[in-house]
Amino acid sequence: MNVLPVNSLDTPRFCGVPTFMRLPQATSLHGLDAAVIGLPSDSGAPFRTGARFGPNAVRAMSVMLRPINPYRGNINVFEKLACADVGDASVVPGYEVESLDRIEESVAALVTAGIVPFGIGGDHSITLAELRAVAARHGPLALVHFDSHSDTWDKYFGGKAYSAGTPFRRAVEEGIVTPGQSIQIGLRGSLFQATDISQSLDLGYDVVTTDEIFDIGFKALADRIAARTAGRPVFLTFDMDFVDPAAAPAVQTPEAGGPSARETLQILRLLHGLDLVGCDVVEANPLYDGPGQITALLAATVLAELMALLASVRG
Amino acid sequence: MNVLPVNSLDTPRFCGVPTFMRLPQATSLHGLDAAVIGLPSDSGAPFRTGARFGPNAVRAMSVMLRPINPYRGNINVFEKLACADVGDASVVPGYEVESLDRIEESVAALVTAGIVPFGIGGDHSITLAELRAVAARHGPLALVHFDSHSDTWDKYFGGKAYSAGTPFRRAVEEGIVTPGQSIQIGLRGSLFQATDISQSLDLGYDVVTTDEIFDIGFKALADRIAARTAGRPVFLTFDMDFVDPAAAPAVQTPEAGGPSARETLQILRLLHGLDLVGCDVVEANPLYDGPGQITALLAATVLAELMALLASVRG
Amino acid sequence: MNVLPVNSLDTPRFCGVPTFMRLPQATSLHGLDAAVIGLPSDSGAPFRTGARFGPNAVRAMSVMLRPINPYRGNINVFEKLACADVGDASVVPGYEVESLDRIEESVAALVTAGIVPFGIGGDHSITLAELRAVAARHGPLALVHFDSHSDTWDKYFGGKAYSAGTPFRRAVEEGIVTPGQSIQIGLRGSLFQATDISQSLDLGYDVVTTDEIFDIGFKALADRIAARTAGRPVFLTFDMDFVDPAAAPAVQTPEAGGPSARETLQILRLLHGLDLVGCDVVEANPLYDGPGQITALLAATVLAELMALLASVRG
Amino acid sequence: MNVLPVNSLDTPRFCGVPTFMRLPQATSLHGLDAAVIGLPSDSGAPFRTGARFGPNAVRAMSVMLRPINPYRGNINVFEKLACADVGDASVVPGYEVESLDRIEESVAALVTAGIVPFGIGGDHSITLAELRAVAARHGPLALVHFDSHSDTWDKYFGGKAYSAGTPFRRAVEEGIVTPGQSIQIGLRGSLFQATDISQSLDLGYDVVTTDEIFDIGFKALADRIAARTAGRPVFLTFDMDFVDPAAAPAVQTPEAGGPSARETLQILRLLHGLDLVGCDVVEANPLYDGPGQITALLAATVLAELMALLASVRG
Amino acid sequence: MNVLPVNSLDTPRFCGVPTFMRLPQATSLHGLDAAVIGLPSDSGAPFRTGARFGPNAVRAMSVMLRPINPYRGNINVFEKLACADVGDASVVPGYEVESLDRIEESVAALVTAGIVPFGIGGDHSITLAELRAVAARHGPLALVHFDSHSDTWDKYFGGKAYSAGTPFRRAVEEGIVTPGQSIQIGLRGSLFQATDISQSLDLGYDVVTTDEIFDIGFKALADRIAARTAGRPVFLTFDMDFVDPAAAPAVQTPEAGGPSARETLQILRLLHGLDLVGCDVVEANPLYDGPGQITALLAATVLAELMALLASVRG
Amino acid sequence: MNVLPVNSLDTPRFCGVPTFMRLPQATSLHGLDAAVIGLPSDSGAPFRTGARFGPNAVRAMSVMLRPINPYRGNINVFEKLACADVGDASVVPGYEVESLDRIEESVAALVTAGIVPFGIGGDHSITLAELRAVAARHGPLALVHFDSHSDTWDKYFGGKAYSAGTPFRRAVEEGIVTPGQSIQIGLRGSLFQATDISQSLDLGYDVVTTDEIFDIGFKALADRIAARTAGRPVFLTFDMDFVDPAAAPAVQTPEAGGPSARETLQILRLLHGLDLVGCDVVEANPLYDGPGQITALLAATVLAELMALLASVRG
Repeated sequence: MNVLPVNSLDTPRFCGVPTFMRLPQATSLHGLDAAVIGLPSDSGAPFRTGARFGPNAVRAMSVMLRPINPYRGNINVFEKLACADVGDASVVPGYEVESLDRIEESVAALVTAGIVPFGIGGDHSITLAELRAVAARHGPLALVHFDSHSDTWDKYFGGKAYSAGTPFRRAVEEGIVTPGQSIQIGLRGSLFQATDISQSLDLGYDVVTTDEIFDIGFKALADRIAARTAGRPVFLTFDMDFVDPAAAPAVQTPEAGGPSARETLQILRLLHGLDLVGCDVVEANPLYDGPGQITALLAATVLAELMALLASVRG
Repeated sequence: MNVLPVNSLDTPRFCGVPTFMRLPQATSLHGLDAAVIGLPSDSGAPFRTGARFGPNAVRAMSVMLRPINPYRGNINVFEKLACADVGDASVVPGYEVESLDRIEESVAALVTAGIVPFGIGGDHSITLAELRAVAARHGPLALVHFDSHSDTWDKYFGGKAYSAGTPFRRAVEEGIVTPGQSIQIGLRGSLFQATDISQSLDLGYDVVTTDEIFDIGFKALADRIAARTAGRPVFLTFDMDFVDPAAAPAVQTPEAGGPSARETLQILRLLHGLDLVGCDVVEANPLYDGPGQITALLAATVLAELMALLASVRG
Repeated sequence: MNVLPVNSLDTPRFCGVPTFMRLPQATSLHGLDAAVIGLPSDSGAPFRTGARFGPNAVRAMSVMLRPINPYRGNINVFEKLACADVGDASVVPGYEVESLDRIEESVAALVTAGIVPFGIGGDHSITLAELRAVAARHGPLALVHFDSHSDTWDKYFGGKAYSAGTPFRRAVEEGIVTPGQSIQIGLRGSLFQATDISQSLDLGYDVVTTDEIFDIGFKALADRIAARTAGRPVFLTFDMDFVDPAAAPAVQTPEAGGPSARETLQILRLLHGLDLVGCDVVEANPLYDGPGQITALLAATVLAELMALLASVRG
Repeated sequence: MNVLPVNSLDTPRFCGVPTFMRLPQATSLHGLDAAVIGLPSDSGAPFRTGARFGPNAVRAMSVMLRPINPYRGNINVFEKLACADVGDASVVPGYEVESLDRIEESVAALVTAGIVPFGIGGDHSITLAELRAVAARHGPLALVHFDSHSDTWDKYFGGKAYSAGTPFRRAVEEGIVTPGQSIQIGLRGSLFQATDISQSLDLGYDVVTTDEIFDIGFKALADRIAARTAGRPVFLTFDMDFVDPAAAPAVQTPEAGGPSARETLQILRLLHGLDLVGCDVVEANPLYDGPGQITALLAATVLAELMALLASVRG
Repeated sequence: MNVLPVNSLDTPRFCGVPTFMRLPQATSLHGLDAAVIGLPSDSGAPFRTGARFGPNAVRAMSVMLRPINPYRGNINVFEKLACADVGDASVVPGYEVESLDRIEESVAALVTAGIVPFGIGGDHSITLAELRAVAARHGPLALVHFDSHSDTWDKYFGGKAYSAGTPFRRAVEEGIVTPGQSIQIGLRGSLFQATDISQSLDLGYDVVTTDEIFDIGFKALADRIAARTAGRPVFLTFDMDFVDPAAAPAVQTPEAGGPSARETLQILRLLHGLDLVGCDVVEANPLYDGPGQITALLAATVLAELMALLASVRG
Repeated sequence: MNVLPVNSLDTPRFCGVPTFMRLPQATSLHGLDAAVIGLPSDSGAPFRTGARFGPNAVRAMSVMLRPINPYRGNINVFEKLACADVGDASVVPGYEVESLDRIEESVAALVTAGIVPFGIGGDHSITLAELRAVAARHGPLALVHFDSHSDTWDKYFGGKAYSAGTPFRRAVEEGIVTPGQSIQIGLRGSLFQATDISQSLDLGYDVVTTDEIFDIGFKALADRIAARTAGRPVFLTFDMDFVDPAAAPAVQTPEAGGPSARETLQILRLLHGLDLVGCDVVEANPLYDGPGQITALLAATVLAELMALLASVRG
């Protein structure tokens, strides 16, 4: 089944209810290779809330994108991959644990059908639910984690274990991520405790700070990611606050001093050798974007590059 | 066929790609009584442009609305009427005449199937296309026209006959509206020529200015509309600039000094005795709404009240 | 203890960290008659989130207000009442039940000290926590509830009992509100079920819809409220969506067609004979206000009018 | 000399650098009856600043307005009055006294040439400079003052005599306004001191609060203004905060609970019998308007109505 | 004739109706070397519309700029070049072909008078009209085209030949551009068809993608442009979407991953050896800029750098 | 006295009235090493005004920051330095000279108590007042000045000596800065006069343009600053327009083409060897920030880095 998106040379991009890249809305999961799914929960957000509106904001800007990726040999992503937009998981706003359960269930339905999920958050706590669903099929995962924060705290407000600040400690504890084959990229900024970064290392993750990205270079970074994750199914999670607030102002916890959009896309286009079984882009919050909606556009572009990465492997 | 909208007590309103009032997206026209259709053309706009984004903005706020209308006997609109969202007509941006042709064609498909169209503009020029499609089936129509401007100019820039300033002169000339059974409501503000209002009277329309609405009262206005249109199929067109800019800032040509949202809805809820065969709400432009999107919400509410009007008659 | 606010004729209003009406920040509860407390939880919000930023937004606009109220005999509110801003309750974002517990605890500390709490929300679910704290001291309360929605649903998403849609059913069940001496004012708009309004009547509340407010007149409404609540301690809760979105765009679930700001303040200024033991203003969300922040200003004004009401009784 | 504005039926309103109502920019004062002049000073603003951008914001929205006024007998204002836009007075930002001097000088140039000035502020302190210039030719003036505040304080921050809070005390002291033939309309809201209103009465002004406007009715108000000012040249000053923040959010010191735009324009259209020798509209600040720029549109409309008032008298 | 702009050390920049860099508005074309002209058409825009408001937005921010350019030997541009702002071409909104005709006519008037036009768009389709006017005098032109898209499509919606997606194919077909001496710089992002870039090469253009700009370096790029265009009159067109959306969010079709503002200006300041006979900056749309209006500022700066380029050659 | 900020892992950052980095509000100056003070004057602003709201905007975003700085050896700044937020100096809006006096007085109170002031502007004219207060104790200061403009003009509008364009000429004239040990960094863009930069050199300052920053490299720049200022107490002033408008749109006089946020922070983190006795960050104006408030966040981050610089020296 190869269903192509609406052709934006025939029908203006503003026509019709926007799905991701104008893909068809799935009425069945049958025959799909990959599916975009909205995961509109922000119950895990300790600061700015509103990422529940992220999936539709990203969809609205994604109509700008075109199906052919020149950075991976001019492949037409949707000729390589049967893709669809499957809508959103339901959630229970204000109930973090129940929301994660619902998200896990929705993602599991995709994974069970052999579909690679491309999630749109939502705050970063949702990734734990995705990891649970994906690991249930593929076993412990290699995590490739772009973010300016490690999100490996133990507890958050009220001693709660589940929040946008804790998923990647929980994932290790639950055995659904193999930290020794996982890597966190982009950490920067001031810290709560002197152990903010070492706590990730202690969990077994490899860590590359923003400064180190520029020290070692993008090509070496891509190679390090490939080497780190070799031989294991990969889940790639991309927190929009990896990028500098100039290019991604609309995030929960912006951290000044990150890579530009051009640098970010260069890194993603250099990624190679990943056995991608799931991915997401999280923390885009349209309430904090200006009228240009550049965060949503960049989030959509990031997801499209990850689709191209999968398509290039599958082709 | 009675397909109900997504239940917003079960699934949060922010989940899923938004259709009008969370109605199903039609995959077939079979069995529908009424259909919401986006008409995203702003090529007729002489001032502010961007109403091409109106349909999706109105849909996004319409998820707030609920199916039961307490102003017409607590009817569940969607139990009375089989409704769906049929997406948008395609248009040719920058080509006014061709855009009207495409809109006419899309609306005609609905009307031919016996469906009452509920259009979301787009600028006001699109109403001419709708009138052509509806009159083709129902004959010359009684027009009920809410607007702060008459839109009965002869020519606009470049001597062009088709623009948001001219549709209701064209409609009389084309014989698709019966001005003697039609009425324009809400005219106000400064004029280009001393004949701005008399030109509508000369065409045969009845005219009620904003001041007269308050002089005669809302009940008398509703009766006058009913009397004026009696015995003829009615097309109701609602330009959002009928309302004061405080309640509807996001329009092409705002005119200070109009009715409030409460007054506007009161008038619509008093309408009676209309043989409604089509209607639209036009000129909502999200680029000029603040973050609260109150113009889009009011436009959605207006359309929902018109659906309830139809449902109360059909019931 | 009569501590006066910063004098805005001496020090510009933009100087200094803004507290409510530039009141002192309390370092002790001793000697206070009334206290403003922020209750920044939005975990109960089924639609738009972000009311966690409401308390500070309302404070920022409240610096515009002056201490003397000409509608109640030119009283200087802060000479009649020893007031302070006590900061915010802590909350657990994403954990509705725990957040309510913390809010209850913070409000209880005030009530126990004999202080009348003036809460700033937060979403409307927080009122349940306040009612618990206030009723613990004063017994079952007469509720005066301004809102365009009844918030008397039984369950919300995921079958959850606690949300912004349910507090006033819970309050009856918990015996902390006496519905026979309580009243809901301002209901309007489309309904989920035909019983949306009757369910409040079934619980024992008196209900005045928006249409009825204008039918009976503001003076009669104030008298009806006084008669309904006579002889019982009153908690007054004011949801900003009572007001039309033109004057209060920045709310969670705006409902087109409400009273204007002038009408709203007229009603509040006519209130009399209430034994006010607590009150709040909720659902102001600065993310949805335009740069003029008119919702926050109106919310601050509403709270100041309620302070004047208390001061006029206490004087 | 009767120079007509650009015809907006020939040339789109967005074409060309916007002058007030698309009037010609004056290259000479010769032959003009009335002139629009920007007075872009906000050095008198005690709270929100930015009204320096007011004149151009009002001009930008004024292109919406048309030359014929149906509320005063369908007169074409610009056939009755030779009008032009003379640009802006220069000012010295951060130097209140010097800015007033420059404004006085610019307005005096108009008045000396027999031209009625229509000023666009700027904060309200600028009116003192205009009054000085106009009274220098016409003698002590009858002031018609629409505002939610009296602006009759004695001193402001730092004991300074000149600020947006003091001009109408200074004007009495300087003998350029005759308070016994002057009137302040629209006062409302909380007060700094119990004498906030009585201090205006003590100075000799008549005062009509917002509540009283609605008590006595608009027709009676217009008659009272006419009677009060009879026989003396009138300067009319309109502070945009007279209007409710829903319709005029973008002002320095918004005061919730004012008249709507429709009510405001009704009052202005009923004014009669005034010997208008100067007027202004002040305190519109585009930084606080939303994208719809409704405050600027209303300010432009107010000024256009005042032009029609003058034209109707001169005709 | 050397008329200097208003001196921003004497008169604040916010005073007066803004022309480009506060230049005089031309009342005659006599003696001018260069003229800024607004070309406010957006009828060619396939996605975001509103660039009709671009010229005045760019003018408003251009008042920030000063006359001396330190990157080209501290020349005072306006002592070298007699410049003026000649206002806007008229257009026919919604009628693409007629709008191009009017723009061509207005630009031709300048070119015929020996004036170098500096156009401010408007969408990119307007450049075709400028090229027609300029080539009519100077013969086929060398095009230097900064853009993230090639705009060399054959047809767009409805099979229409004229749109913002097609001008640089039309220009080749019409023989007004010499592709063998022309160059497109900055292409990037996803593609509609695998031939998106090769179609430009097939037409004869040289193409430098965004990636290649950084591979070869800015100095080499400037040399390549000089070599490519040597010996032929040059028209330089600058689409604001060349720049990354972080620095230019307010464009019709933003493309994530472009050069920064600093990099962009560095490239422009290195340009040399061009026989510049016309240029424009297009696609700035203030509706999508935030309150900082950084896209408009950058567009103004780009145009000012091009003026300095011309001045440095002419001097 | 080592008072720590509110712990953002215990209490959500949105709880409570925001002070800088959630530091305690000082009730006494006793025992403090450093203090954050708001200096909310914009009376010196020649273009965009509103920086009076800068201090509270910077505070609101500063709650994102954490106490430990990994770029200077993981020091906990607030364990090294006893810090507090001492609120704002009072000012006299519209009276530049008086405002400077009040600011000087407030800063002097800190300096006299041995406290290093960390000022938040306000427009850049306020730095003169700070320099006066600091030099009164420490003698003539070495100025480290980050800015895209030199601010060394002699006079501004109306021949006034005090404005945001003149402080660093005044400071030399007053003998409170030693230009031979001072340095201006970041100048760029178009000039009023060919002497714009040489006038700084003539005064004795060292100057590094934006282009030169990148030519010599960040490490060499930091060394040059250290060498220049060696042996003298340093006041560091940071104008937010040093940064490119993409990363800092909300400034008075944005100048396209500056360093990114990442580059800016890299430079600050390389600073060393400075005997810091005072510093400020100025010209952040929230009215021009989008909803993401990235300028305010970056301003807060800059100030936090300067605190870390001081802490690293003091430790």
